Amino acid sequence: MSWTRRHLLDIESLTPEEILTVLDTARAFKAVGERTIKKVPALRGKTVVNLFVEPSTRTRTSFELSEQRLSADIINFTAEASSLRKGETLKDTARNLEALNVDFIVIRHTAAGAPHFLARVLQAHVINAGDGAHEHPTQALLDLFTIREKKGRIEGLNVTIIGDILYSRVARSDIWGLTKLGARVTLCGPATLVPREFEQLGCRISYDLEEAIREADVINLLRIQHERQRRTMFPGIHEYTQFFGLNPARMARTKPDVLIMHPGPINRGVEIDSETADGERSVILEQVTNGLAVRMAVLFLVNGGRGPQEVAAA
Amino acid sequence: MSWTRRHLLDIESLTPEEILTVLDTARAFKAVGERTIKKVPALRGKTVVNLFVEPSTRTRTSFELSEQRLSADIINFTAEASSLRKGETLKDTARNLEALNVDFIVIRHTAAGAPHFLARVLQAHVINAGDGAHEHPTQALLDLFTIREKKGRIEGLNVTIIGDILYSRVARSDIWGLTKLGARVTLCGPATLVPREFEQLGCRISYDLEEAIREADVINLLRIQHERQRRTMFPGIHEYTQFFGLNPARMARTKPDVLIMHPGPINRGVEIDSETADGERSVILEQVTNGLAVRMAVLFLVNGGRGPQEVAAA
Amino acid sequence: MSWTRRHLLDIESLTPEEILTVLDTARAFKAVGERTIKKVPALRGKTVVNLFVEPSTRTRTSFELSEQRLSADIINFTAEASSLRKGETLKDTARNLEALNVDFIVIRHTAAGAPHFLARVLQAHVINAGDGAHEHPTQALLDLFTIREKKGRIEGLNVTIIGDILYSRVARSDIWGLTKLGARVTLCGPATLVPREFEQLGCRISYDLEEAIREADVINLLRIQHERQRRTMFPGIHEYTQFFGLNPARMARTKPDVLIMHPGPINRGVEIDSETADGERSVILEQVTNGLAVRMAVLFLVNGGRGPQEVAAA
Repeated sequence: MSWTRRHLLDIESLTPEEILTVLDTARAFKAVGERTIKKVPALRGKTVVNLFVEPSTRTRTSFELSEQRLSADIINFTAEASSLRKGETLKDTARNLEALNVDFIVIRHTAAGAPHFLARVLQAHVINAGDGAHEHPTQALLDLFTIREKKGRIEGLNVTIIGDILYSRVARSDIWGLTKLGARVTLCGPATLVPREFEQLGCRISYDLEEAIREADVINLLRIQHERQRRTMFPGIHEYTQFFGLNPARMARTKPDVLIMHPGPINRGVEIDSETADGERSVILEQVTNGLAVRMAVLFLVNGGRGPQEVAAA
Repeated sequence: MSWTRRHLLDIESLTPEEILTVLDTARAFKAVGERTIKKVPALRGKTVVNLFVEPSTRTRTSFELSEQRLSADIINFTAEASSLRKGETLKDTARNLEALNVDFIVIRHTAAGAPHFLARVLQAHVINAGDGAHEHPTQALLDLFTIREKKGRIEGLNVTIIGDILYSRVARSDIWGLTKLGARVTLCGPATLVPREFEQLGCRISYDLEEAIREADVINLLRIQHERQRRTMFPGIHEYTQFFGLNPARMARTKPDVLIMHPGPINRGVEIDSETADGERSVILEQVTNGLAVRMAVLFLVNGGRGPQEVAAA
Repeated sequence: MSWTRRHLLDIESLTPEEILTVLDTARAFKAVGERTIKKVPALRGKTVVNLFVEPSTRTRTSFELSEQRLSADIINFTAEASSLRKGETLKDTARNLEALNVDFIVIRHTAAGAPHFLARVLQAHVINAGDGAHEHPTQALLDLFTIREKKGRIEGLNVTIIGDILYSRVARSDIWGLTKLGARVTLCGPATLVPREFEQLGCRISYDLEEAIREADVINLLRIQHERQRRTMFPGIHEYTQFFGLNPARMARTKPDVLIMHPGPINRGVEIDSETADGERSVILEQVTNGLAVRMAVLFLVNGGRGPQEVAAA
């Protein structure tokens, strides 16, 4: 099935076939990354603005490298440096960028829905690089890519996501992607951060870590973000680690081929200890590598590429 | 007439013929921007430093895109990040950049005259991207370009500039450019910000907004910059809007084909209301688009391009 | 002799032959810089990350320009913007960059040994752009290049380094490079900042400026860094200038062909007065120019270039 969307705003609105088209296209780009000449001219002469109103060097760097590999011209536009400080609205910023003949806007924003808003008012292609606590679709796509590459499939797998589900855009996008492709998703963490309402998204809820990871094929740990936790809801770092931190003792009671995933950056000794993070079942760095291929695929597809069969000619 | 200057420092010292050469060259570059392949190799292998000692994402982005379209190599050098923080003088910074074989310095600086100073001590081409309250020549050139494109001419037009004229580099550059090309310029705003001295530049002064805009072919609104207004001179935002803000009631008493211009970023609800800013007589976003072509033209001309007839071969 | 190292971490571990290979390769690149087309495709398709955890626009700009001349793709990753703020370790940052298929990491870090640490844990090429008070090898190489170019040799020259030797990475790298190539090095400055221990590195110590510079063929002044001096050790700026500042009166008692060097940025009126800094014996700006060629040579060599004979084909 060929891709027809002009933007990537979320996972919620994608069909399973569209998700698979991204994954297949990313696989073709990953092969390109292993060639001597890693660059393709697919976006030559096109301009991409990385509009990061919330700082994120990691995601921004991954997008920037993907754009360089596709031969795009790149403008980095961060909130610190921007006229947004002068009180200009997002709409005015975006319309000005478009008036500069920008072709793509990759946006990271603190407000949920900011990318959707831009897609309605602009002609440029919009890619959501994380909007508030709403979605982070390219992170979910690289997670799905990594799981499929390692396990050969996604359907029927048991995937456990651990942490602050309530405020996590990564969790939301992962839940949409995993359930659409037929995985069984378990959410685990303190009750204040993993409300029962998530059962409506087709997830199982567990407040018992050991129960939640026993049958898991994949364990996806979320970052405990000190700066973002609401004090009244969060039990304290030590208590969190005691009840929900992954470590060798707990790993001993998981499936021997379980995958350990984390969107990074990791807090060593908090949600995961170093032995587990750096162990042989961890695919954390492979997620980073796959992020490049996935983001190249997304940029390629929203630009009018129809699917993996066209990558060789890119 | 062919261009021979190595720098663009101000509008004051340009002849009408030189201004027209920039506008004609910009028109040729605007046509390039509408081709499938928007890049030309005119500055391939040349290095441009964007030396922004006063922050301005908007102008910097416009220059950076222009430089990318001309295939230049680009270094962004901002005051926040720079060794200027260590107390180094502008002269030492500039001479060091030149020792690095930089070909162009695009400078935005809080001090009037900083670009002229650099042009005296450097071999590199210097382009003024705004110096204190002195001049902002590329803004004036894009304003002139937009007026000529929309009205077919500049000579004989009535142009009204509204706002803080006293502290505005945009106003100064616009006044030079418009009067050199034969427009009649009216300045309007609070008396403390629009002193009678400006009559010596060939302008008419008016403190009555409705009188000032009645016969205008072009209304150019300046941004009210909260951070820059001197408290004792400025009447307060609400009072300013009441007396000098543009809105549909006031627009009803202007010529039906008046152009509404603004250098951006706009303060919606202060110097202009949203209906007027986004209305059909507003060319604010077209100014942004034209800024690209004008800045490409300036870089091309100071690099030795003689005029529009050479753009096709660029 | 051909180059075989994959990193440039310090001068201490280089052989004299390796240093000369860098200088000869840099000479070939300097010739490239004088051609009409200054870019070579040596690093086309390779990605360089400039990981500056301590700010330094000057050194970063020099590296960035060198990388552009070699046609590399460039990511600038500064501490202010980086996830290091979130408490991530340097190791995790570096491993993530490597997972993004980065080929080179140019690192400036406040911690001595940070580049050596990265070289042990990464496959990417690592170049030390200054680590704490330890080494700044490309600065020493450009100093050596400049001396050899001006004097025709290094062996047997008297080189006097003046300033805060104790806390200077430039001094350390210069001492290693100069003594390996046979220069006689004199260190001069306040006794608290020039301890006797440096005699073990083969240097002569002098606390008398006029004695130290009388027979010097090269005088290398270090920057007095207000922000870094320990209060208890530093005599105060005025007293420093009185005893150790270079000025025309003192220059009158030096050799007529002495070279005046400074790594920049200079403090005019502190360690050097303007007449001397801008005088005909000063090669301060030539050091900046040579920095480009030296950094191109280093990137070229660690990438597998074997020496100057291969530059023409780059």
